[in-house]
Amino acid sequence: MCADLGNLERDIRELDAAGVDFYHIDVMDGKFAPNFTLGPDFVKTVRRITDKPLDIHLMIEEPERYIDLFAECEVEMISIHQESTPNLQRALAQIQSRGIKAGVAINPATSLDFLDYVYNVTDYVVVMTVNPGFAGQKFLPAMYKKIAELHERISTYDRDIEIQVDGNIGAETIPGCKENGATMYVLGTSAVFNSHHSLEENVANTRELFK
Amino acid sequence: MCADLGNLERDIRELDAAGVDFYHIDVMDGKFAPNFTLGPDFVKTVRRITDKPLDIHLMIEEPERYIDLFAECEVEMISIHQESTPNLQRALAQIQSRGIKAGVAINPATSLDFLDYVYNVTDYVVVMTVNPGFAGQKFLPAMYKKIAELHERISTYDRDIEIQVDGNIGAETIPGCKENGATMYVLGTSAVFNSHHSLEENVANTRELFK
Amino acid sequence: MCADLGNLERDIRELDAAGVDFYHIDVMDGKFAPNFTLGPDFVKTVRRITDKPLDIHLMIEEPERYIDLFAECEVEMISIHQESTPNLQRALAQIQSRGIKAGVAINPATSLDFLDYVYNVTDYVVVMTVNPGFAGQKFLPAMYKKIAELHERISTYDRDIEIQVDGNIGAETIPGCKENGATMYVLGTSAVFNSHHSLEENVANTRELFK
Amino acid sequence: MCADLGNLERDIRELDAAGVDFYHIDVMDGKFAPNFTLGPDFVKTVRRITDKPLDIHLMIEEPERYIDLFAECEVEMISIHQESTPNLQRALAQIQSRGIKAGVAINPATSLDFLDYVYNVTDYVVVMTVNPGFAGQKFLPAMYKKIAELHERISTYDRDIEIQVDGNIGAETIPGCKENGATMYVLGTSAVFNSHHSLEENVANTRELFK
Amino acid sequence: MCADLGNLERDIRELDAAGVDFYHIDVMDGKFAPNFTLGPDFVKTVRRITDKPLDIHLMIEEPERYIDLFAECEVEMISIHQESTPNLQRALAQIQSRGIKAGVAINPATSLDFLDYVYNVTDYVVVMTVNPGFAGQKFLPAMYKKIAELHERISTYDRDIEIQVDGNIGAETIPGCKENGATMYVLGTSAVFNSHHSLEENVANTRELFK
Amino acid sequence: MCADLGNLERDIRELDAAGVDFYHIDVMDGKFAPNFTLGPDFVKTVRRITDKPLDIHLMIEEPERYIDLFAECEVEMISIHQESTPNLQRALAQIQSRGIKAGVAINPATSLDFLDYVYNVTDYVVVMTVNPGFAGQKFLPAMYKKIAELHERISTYDRDIEIQVDGNIGAETIPGCKENGATMYVLGTSAVFNSHHSLEENVANTRELFK
Repeated sequence: MCADLGNLERDIRELDAAGVDFYHIDVMDGKFAPNFTLGPDFVKTVRRITDKPLDIHLMIEEPERYIDLFAECEVEMISIHQESTPNLQRALAQIQSRGIKAGVAINPATSLDFLDYVYNVTDYVVVMTVNPGFAGQKFLPAMYKKIAELHERISTYDRDIEIQVDGNIGAETIPGCKENGATMYVLGTSAVFNSHHSLEENVANTRELFK
Repeated sequence: MCADLGNLERDIRELDAAGVDFYHIDVMDGKFAPNFTLGPDFVKTVRRITDKPLDIHLMIEEPERYIDLFAECEVEMISIHQESTPNLQRALAQIQSRGIKAGVAINPATSLDFLDYVYNVTDYVVVMTVNPGFAGQKFLPAMYKKIAELHERISTYDRDIEIQVDGNIGAETIPGCKENGATMYVLGTSAVFNSHHSLEENVANTRELFK
Repeated sequence: MCADLGNLERDIRELDAAGVDFYHIDVMDGKFAPNFTLGPDFVKTVRRITDKPLDIHLMIEEPERYIDLFAECEVEMISIHQESTPNLQRALAQIQSRGIKAGVAINPATSLDFLDYVYNVTDYVVVMTVNPGFAGQKFLPAMYKKIAELHERISTYDRDIEIQVDGNIGAETIPGCKENGATMYVLGTSAVFNSHHSLEENVANTRELFK
Repeated sequence: MCADLGNLERDIRELDAAGVDFYHIDVMDGKFAPNFTLGPDFVKTVRRITDKPLDIHLMIEEPERYIDLFAECEVEMISIHQESTPNLQRALAQIQSRGIKAGVAINPATSLDFLDYVYNVTDYVVVMTVNPGFAGQKFLPAMYKKIAELHERISTYDRDIEIQVDGNIGAETIPGCKENGATMYVLGTSAVFNSHHSLEENVANTRELFK
Repeated sequence: MCADLGNLERDIRELDAAGVDFYHIDVMDGKFAPNFTLGPDFVKTVRRITDKPLDIHLMIEEPERYIDLFAECEVEMISIHQESTPNLQRALAQIQSRGIKAGVAINPATSLDFLDYVYNVTDYVVVMTVNPGFAGQKFLPAMYKKIAELHERISTYDRDIEIQVDGNIGAETIPGCKENGATMYVLGTSAVFNSHHSLEENVANTRELFK
Repeated sequence: MCADLGNLERDIRELDAAGVDFYHIDVMDGKFAPNFTLGPDFVKTVRRITDKPLDIHLMIEEPERYIDLFAECEVEMISIHQESTPNLQRALAQIQSRGIKAGVAINPATSLDFLDYVYNVTDYVVVMTVNPGFAGQKFLPAMYKKIAELHERISTYDRDIEIQVDGNIGAETIPGCKENGATMYVLGTSAVFNSHHSLEENVANTRELFK
């Protein structure tokens, strides 16, 4: 969520009108990721403003403890990190049991082998294309190959599993991600929230990249 | 920070005009306090909008790791919890070394004896009058006596140490806090952010309580 | 719970008939105390057999996470350790809110000052007279004075707060504990479960010590 | 261990007579698995009653700290979780050095790749067919394939490594497990301890399933 | 241990000849104190060179896990931190049970009340006069009063308990420490290991300060 | 670093003259590895004595917190453990950004799959051939195959990635390591520091093994 936090309602209304697909909100605990960002009160505020799907990205240790807290904010998607819990299967099933799409996020160094037995409880995989923690990092090129490999693996399942990419997603990286199989894009300062154009223009320009 | 997160700039400008003394922003890590709230990006947004002092309340484990991150947001006050670090003296001195006022916060159950050797690096003590984590809890009456005892202890020092109270501070509790020696008040949903009146009226009404 | 775990029902019926006042069940996590003992399934079994009060002693880190799990076993008393949580006030209130008596346990080295602000949410204080973890340790004589000091402190409150002693409580230590103000006794291998006499005789003999 | 904890000796003698192969006892720490169960005192009680092999399943963090404590209970098998220690090789070797069979347990989401370099110190692999923590969960069908893949991997070694399955093992799931290569079955409420028949009948009925 | 680590044997022989009373060796874990220093192999090396008492200062979490490791290095004194374990009484008794003097160290912010119930298992109290972690910090003047208060408290016991001071102890601070009741001095870069004079001269000069 | 810690400078000068290639220094935190060894002060001492490359092996949790501390000691190589951080990619990049070679170490049980996405930020892989913690353990034969498999994997990259072996490396194990593709050898008590010959002879004898 790289919107203007001082005028959130205004920005969200503008983005809604521009036709964004969903809002992605990061939650950090200063342990799993070395920063702090937003929490349930903020999510509820966004919920009150928009009907678009809200996508909560939990970059926290022991995410199973907090899934219910965010589920109660009436969100549509929650992703947790493979590296953050030994009980990944249960945590994903816990999300789905609330009628929420369950995502599993993997850090840049994390092997795809770690996901072999959870695809049946996974609605989307978040391929982190930078390390979690801060905006403004550079896309890691080794991730293109990971996206392609993941795309190949999930194509053997007859469930529909999306590939979300998160980290420095913009004009320079969207084509490569798309080509390799990404289907959902977390757009931040590199695309929608740069200051040279209006939000509407940025959304329109970004949309062009997918054509 | 119980302001309308959707229209933060508007609310802050209104509160600035109404003459509030400082803005108090909670940071939680889901470990020390069982919730998540706000982080540096939010603090920077508030900083951009107002010149009033910003007071950061770190309800996190190992606060010494994150003092610099918040200091870089150009805030005026940072408080940390006595229960959250074995190196309390160093952490408080670390805050002061950045030219920022250092506060030590204590949970409802925490003894005042724990502060005996840190008053010389403490600018304000935050007496938690509810347990950290969630808005809407009830003031714990045993805290009046704690405020009074703290007031007595710090009066033996010739440094000026403020007593901040945090948790369900409003019309019903301000008189008792004031009477016992509190000098700074964290005003949230119980005072400034109730929905019956405008922010300006609430600030004015609250100000009456201190007369 | 030092009963014969192979014939628990038989032992409990015998103890019930002999007139014991309550059953004390230890729970350990291998972190706060260096051992493992019993859990909710065991508590439910005891509950099914007897109507006497069940007293659960949680020697675990972050006890607030597991209070509900044990409350659902229909017990009458739960004690947690002062050393195990920075949110002692909340945890004790959480126990009481379930209609269960709340105890705060303190290890041998722990100062009574740590309890200054929780007596109003405390039904009993557990003075550990050995360090938690294993049966068969020797009573620490310095604890007699602690019992006396605690007795004096709680006598200034008009609430009825019991003093429970736990650790090597038997013929040699009961008189000293009683004299100093203890009112509840956790009887283990040193009193009720020694193998020289029947449980009934041991209970009767122990009862004599209190006259 | 889903026996009647109130009449353990009676149940064990009945099960011994019915010819069960081993007793499986779960140990949890409230961290690695969100529950508490049994400990060394309980294991010693079972040891005193039966000569059958005892199989201790450590669902705890840092299991290397507690291997000796359980080894001293004179058990025949100890399993630890791959997810619970970075020093898996050493921990397994530590178990074997006590003359005890060493098992490595893997949660439902855990990849078999994690075991590539420990088969030479592994006597049995525990495939968790539910997430650890509670009885009564449903068998995860994705585990059949994992059993088959594990069976194939270990067949390339000339050591005899057993495949133990744990979690909702009963009439409905035993055939599928057997077909895919499982060789040891942890029988709980789904098989031996259901209340419709005597233990003897249940053991006999379950035995039929393996023919 | 601020000796020249490149020529330890030479330095120790020189210090032995100069008549130092004991050698103080710091151990850190990067958690309790934010640094790493030395370990058992180093301690054994020093042991081989000198017969003077070795004093091991454990600035680590869960010190009870490592007391035996250092006891096996044949040292005379081990101190642990009050802030580092909830089982302080047991840990100190564990040290004494090996025939080693047991010290309890307290950080600058730590209240003396925390020691009320451990004096009977304490041979020396280490008053940290800087925060643990790094050499070269400045003595905290508030510690003079703490030394005096500690001196008064222990004088009521008929056991002989030493007061050790650790942190920037040298010509400027020794007189104040002595005056307030300190009896053991950890001499580092501020006294013995400054580079202006030989070790022998420094020891002699420092010895003058105590007259 | 198995040199004589009492006469480090002498030993290092002798080893320098004998032509060793680099010095390997272990750092442990008592958590990731169950021991304590050396720290920055020691590293700085070695740095002052020799110009040979210094190779720091961090066997600690959360290594990213301490990379800068060791980087400031002017070392040439730092390795961290795959098992010790969920942010492996960032930590390795952090080392390289300081102009230092970045190594990733893997415990005996750790799968090579865990390295699939970090080779582009890795200068050397440390294959632990014993479990970290203590000198004097026996080489694990299963590691020969791991070295060979690693050699094959990295040969597909056009970057030059070294394979370092660490643990009981000496006359009996060097040939097998070399044959399978190891290129850097951590020589300790098994090779250079045995007491039967001078350091110079040992270095010469060991050098023979590589021919």
